[in-house]
Amino acid sequence: MAKAITIFGSTGNLMYKKIIPAIDSLYNQNLIEEDTKIYCIARRDCTLQDYIEDAKNYVKEDVDWERLEEKFTYILFDINDGDHYKKLKSRMEKDAIDDVFFYLAVPPRLFPIISKKISQSKLITKEDENKRIVFEKPFGEDLESAKSINKNLWQYFKEEQIYRIDHYLGKEMIQNILVIRFANKLFASGWNNQSIESISVVAKEKEGVMTRGGYYDTIGALKDMFQSHLLQMMALITMDHPTNFTSSAIKDAKVKMFKQLKIKEDDLFLGQYEGYLNEEKVDSNSTTETFVYLKGYIDNERLKGVPIHFLTGKKLDEKRSEIVVHFKDDKTLLDNFENVKPKNNKLIIRVAPEEGVHFQFNIKESGLENIIKQASLEYCHTCNALTNSPEAYEKLLLDLLNQTKTLFTRWDEIESTWEIVETIKHKHIKPYVYSSYEELISKLKNQCEVDCYDL
Amino acid sequence: MAKAITIFGSTGNLMYKKIIPAIDSLYNQNLIEEDTKIYCIARRDCTLQDYIEDAKNYVKEDVDWERLEEKFTYILFDINDGDHYKKLKSRMEKDAIDDVFFYLAVPPRLFPIISKKISQSKLITKEDENKRIVFEKPFGEDLESAKSINKNLWQYFKEEQIYRIDHYLGKEMIQNILVIRFANKLFASGWNNQSIESISVVAKEKEGVMTRGGYYDTIGALKDMFQSHLLQMMALITMDHPTNFTSSAIKDAKVKMFKQLKIKEDDLFLGQYEGYLNEEKVDSNSTTETFVYLKGYIDNERLKGVPIHFLTGKKLDEKRSEIVVHFKDDKTLLDNFENVKPKNNKLIIRVAPEEGVHFQFNIKESGLENIIKQASLEYCHTCNALTNSPEAYEKLLLDLLNQTKTLFTRWDEIESTWEIVETIKHKHIKPYVYSSYEELISKLKNQCEVDCYDL
Repeated sequence: MAKAITIFGSTGNLMYKKIIPAIDSLYNQNLIEEDTKIYCIARRDCTLQDYIEDAKNYVKEDVDWERLEEKFTYILFDINDGDHYKKLKSRMEKDAIDDVFFYLAVPPRLFPIISKKISQSKLITKEDENKRIVFEKPFGEDLESAKSINKNLWQYFKEEQIYRIDHYLGKEMIQNILVIRFANKLFASGWNNQSIESISVVAKEKEGVMTRGGYYDTIGALKDMFQSHLLQMMALITMDHPTNFTSSAIKDAKVKMFKQLKIKEDDLFLGQYEGYLNEEKVDSNSTTETFVYLKGYIDNERLKGVPIHFLTGKKLDEKRSEIVVHFKDDKTLLDNFENVKPKNNKLIIRVAPEEGVHFQFNIKESGLENIIKQASLEYCHTCNALTNSPEAYEKLLLDLLNQTKTLFTRWDEIESTWEIVETIKHKHIKPYVYSSYEELISKLKNQCEVDCYDL
Repeated sequence: MAKAITIFGSTGNLMYKKIIPAIDSLYNQNLIEEDTKIYCIARRDCTLQDYIEDAKNYVKEDVDWERLEEKFTYILFDINDGDHYKKLKSRMEKDAIDDVFFYLAVPPRLFPIISKKISQSKLITKEDENKRIVFEKPFGEDLESAKSINKNLWQYFKEEQIYRIDHYLGKEMIQNILVIRFANKLFASGWNNQSIESISVVAKEKEGVMTRGGYYDTIGALKDMFQSHLLQMMALITMDHPTNFTSSAIKDAKVKMFKQLKIKEDDLFLGQYEGYLNEEKVDSNSTTETFVYLKGYIDNERLKGVPIHFLTGKKLDEKRSEIVVHFKDDKTLLDNFENVKPKNNKLIIRVAPEEGVHFQFNIKESGLENIIKQASLEYCHTCNALTNSPEAYEKLLLDLLNQTKTLFTRWDEIESTWEIVETIKHKHIKPYVYSSYEELISKLKNQCEVDCYDL
């Protein structure tokens, strides 16, 4: 009996950019069993050889195509045709597959039909412990649709069989947040409103919508980035010490933060980059935001009063995802010093593109005068790891193979993050059109409080 | 009217190694007024030119001798002869000096006679606000002698006129400890027994007693280093937040720590380096310790149970003074990880010879496996300051000129540190003779608890 990976949407971007390189890398590390089959499912009528030849145009990494050709099976598939699922089932039985996950690398609107037919064809029954189904975000487009999708899923599958991928959770520094916070008591004990002045959760992109215009225009930055990545980062950086470090205890602690997050609506700021309306498949009257800034607070004793700044958008000055924790200075001490710049004291967890930790704290400048300056301590994760830093997808695929759920989102995480988005009444706001990041930030600072974004 | 600096012991090591280079450097920075006179007092019968020529053999720094010759006045002096003090007084009046400090760079046994005669000759009266007297440590050789010296001093001078130098307090990183601790709330709030596992206060020397054998043999490491430098470092690293950052509030907070320090006598360990008995002017049967390790605790709620390891000695593996704060790990988190080495998490404040801060904390190793490793963050103070790091004595002399008392020790600091030494019954212990640091530490670890010194 053998394992298999089945990917719906095998001619898509995700397959070419993430899944194929990750599978290749896992083979290189002998982390996939030799007899594991990879079923590549798509609607294009072609041979495996044609599929591979075409894929070579899109996969940028230097993968071992010969090996992949040996492991791959290409399956022409109409997702609406129940017979195709049955044929797939026979094929798997013939291949003696008893452990498989079905990866739905397809637009979310196709989740219901594929789920239904996978269930009807008995590719997965609720009794199959070693069969599971994997979804990419977004899990719905709002609370209602997410609930409806989920209700649908639960009809066919047990929650344990459902794996919801947020690839951000697979990133090294995201996995690292809890270790940094809790394996170091110094950080752990200072993680409160006595020490922390503010937190910024940032995901900036330099590119525009590229080829994703059609999908993106129906979604916008708030749902595309804030609901998932930014809120996940927020939860990890703010959560209480979990009762233990099992997947479910961590998820419990995160969900608690989602429920305690209060958004300050007055400080909501939306932007749309100049030229967005001319992008392919974008409505020429679209008011979809490509930039969002908002401010929240965690409504508990420990973090009461600590502003959390969220900022994400496209066509900004650089690609950068990071969390910045600003610590307080001691005013009574600083009064004795000259030239004190406030907020020198911060911990930055860099998530992308480079990974690392930057810790900056106040010291007395060397010399006869009393001047405070900042000591900058840099730890570059990617540098030290050399080529060893695995792409998030490797980790996620490996966990999928091993049925480890830590890095996948549970339904109540989805539900509570959509509930947050639900509370943000952004539909009536016309986004500000920005031509550059500098201009955007200057406009933003004029509108909201001065400290709204201080990186 | 003008200022003056008067140094008793101008042909001594301290004058050549520290005071002359510091004075020269202050002139370079225009921090000494042009008409300030420097009276160099010693018992050698020679001219200023002879004195300078001789000094050139001892001063290693490249100083401006021409300028110094212009500022210096050499005074042949018998400290027992009252007339010499009177002549000095006349000389100063002639030079129109109204602001002066008398720096006693002489062995402590001479403090009483010089103090008495300075007072009798009215070089300083208790009414002179701009006249002050400066002592080098040690301030006595035990509690009793310190008290007696001090009683003596108070007879002649007001406490405000008395400056007790501990040159360690002038070192950059010592001045920096309070800034690092209190200007960074993250550190401030984690400074307790919830976060801190242990503290090590270390001053290792590579050299032996050199030419100081005669003096050292009557004193030993406990009084020479522990009573002053080590306890001062301990107080700064453990003290509560002072009510404010004035000199006197900081001293209050330090004295509180001296009083709360409890020494664990069982863990006292004394050593004497091989060959010490053959050193010049050392008693050939001496049981004076050249190495001391001991363990203490601060008896207050905040630091209850945190062991403080003191270690100092001569002829060790390297010259190094530093404070190491070990933070706790989170066992419940670490249980999920492989290959966890405990105590990865520490802050090292490097005092000498290099100055800097080293911060080491736990992160997850990059990769698909769960391994904790340490991220090392280095801040080299001396590196960033380039040539700008002032010798401790520059800072001390400048503060003496400006009557700033922060870096000088107050009587109750002296008293309470001698009280600590008094409680340590070390006289009956024969020191262990060590030939190398490795051997010494191995012996030490056998004797005391395993964690007695874990750098």
